[in-house]
Amino acid sequence: MTAATGTLYGVGVGPGDPELLTLKAVRIIRAAPAVAYLTNSEGRSQARNIAAGWLSPEQLEIPIPMVFETDRNRANQIYDHAAATLTEVLSAGQDVVVLCEGDPLFFGSFIHLLKRLKNRFPCAVVPGLTSVGAATAVAARPLAAGNDSIAIIPATAGMDKLRQVLQTFDSIVIMKPGRYRPRILELLHQTGRIEDAVYVEQATRRDQRIVVELDNLEPTPGPYFALFLITPRGNA
Amino acid sequence: MTAATGTLYGVGVGPGDPELLTLKAVRIIRAAPAVAYLTNSEGRSQARNIAAGWLSPEQLEIPIPMVFETDRNRANQIYDHAAATLTEVLSAGQDVVVLCEGDPLFFGSFIHLLKRLKNRFPCAVVPGLTSVGAATAVAARPLAAGNDSIAIIPATAGMDKLRQVLQTFDSIVIMKPGRYRPRILELLHQTGRIEDAVYVEQATRRDQRIVVELDNLEPTPGPYFALFLITPRGNA
Repeated sequence: MTAATGTLYGVGVGPGDPELLTLKAVRIIRAAPAVAYLTNSEGRSQARNIAAGWLSPEQLEIPIPMVFETDRNRANQIYDHAAATLTEVLSAGQDVVVLCEGDPLFFGSFIHLLKRLKNRFPCAVVPGLTSVGAATAVAARPLAAGNDSIAIIPATAGMDKLRQVLQTFDSIVIMKPGRYRPRILELLHQTGRIEDAVYVEQATRRDQRIVVELDNLEPTPGPYFALFLITPRGNA
Repeated sequence: MTAATGTLYGVGVGPGDPELLTLKAVRIIRAAPAVAYLTNSEGRSQARNIAAGWLSPEQLEIPIPMVFETDRNRANQIYDHAAATLTEVLSAGQDVVVLCEGDPLFFGSFIHLLKRLKNRFPCAVVPGLTSVGAATAVAARPLAAGNDSIAIIPATAGMDKLRQVLQTFDSIVIMKPGRYRPRILELLHQTGRIEDAVYVEQATRRDQRIVVELDNLEPTPGPYFALFLITPRGNA
């Protein structure tokens, strides 16, 4: 690491609403000579969309085409390749901002880039609002107060683990319900937590959906960018 | 609720660094005719300090003098009184912004005001960055990736609960260590998680302190605005 290398920034741009960027994120994004972001198979990037108002044509843009995370080998190849590309830019002395949906260190792809680059370049993280904070805000549901304990757990962690946390924690956030939505609804009924639960899809995005009465939620697979919030009745 | 009443806003101003305010928080704070915040026994307010750059002399300021939370009856009286004061302003048709350190719905005092006012006035929440997001960013520690499960738990929840989550969760955040700091250190040793842990005080504030090697952390009581981050070795 020499004085001439650039800094790698992971910058959280929040869950969707461009107004939920922090002042710091805006300053760092505007000042960056190079901006990287993951894209989907159609070449679109939600993170870039959120930050678009602060980008300029002078900036080098580095799209990183991502595949579904389930193909871990392929994903690792993509991160290796992206890290090599970023290494070139950073070695040339230019800072790189990686635009991250939500928060870079909260289930973020940035973690995979940080792991590959942190021993070679100065790295800094600008935290961003998570989908959890956004969902509690749009649903106006207090997540935790006083001595409350919180569990945050992806549906992919398995139904046994979900059942256990529903029985032992005051507040639970079940992330990425996707195809597990019917089984989560069953579990909420079985554990007596269905009336403590609210379901939020795409918080703060244009297609946001809030379901307070879970009898109105279809017991069918749903989107990945959604979550169940289960909170103590006394807090609401 | 009539068209003439004001709206109650809970606005998160983040954990300390004024640059971590969101654009939305800045807009709502600047537009508010009245701004409320909790103060300590010396009349100081950390939330007001963070937002000070966006306040103007034309705004009505409503300080809410708070006592230690352990005196619950007294705290409830103070929230009742504050709710009555806010009711007057809201009933007169003026919006009120309650400035909240961190996020209003994440262990925030705003929850107590929301509970008292939400059935009488329109309420909205602007989420803010939590101390958890700030701590992971300044320590550059990924909180969770992939299928990781996260437990967030205040030290006041008891040592048995802490032990259990240290043994069963990938990532754990222990909030408000305060006088429990020595026992938490013991527990981290006992559960074999000491090397997964980092300690952060006052994240993003002037007196921020990060301790990566926990052998260097005094086994003595410490401040309340601090946390232990315990994360899987593989993510870092």
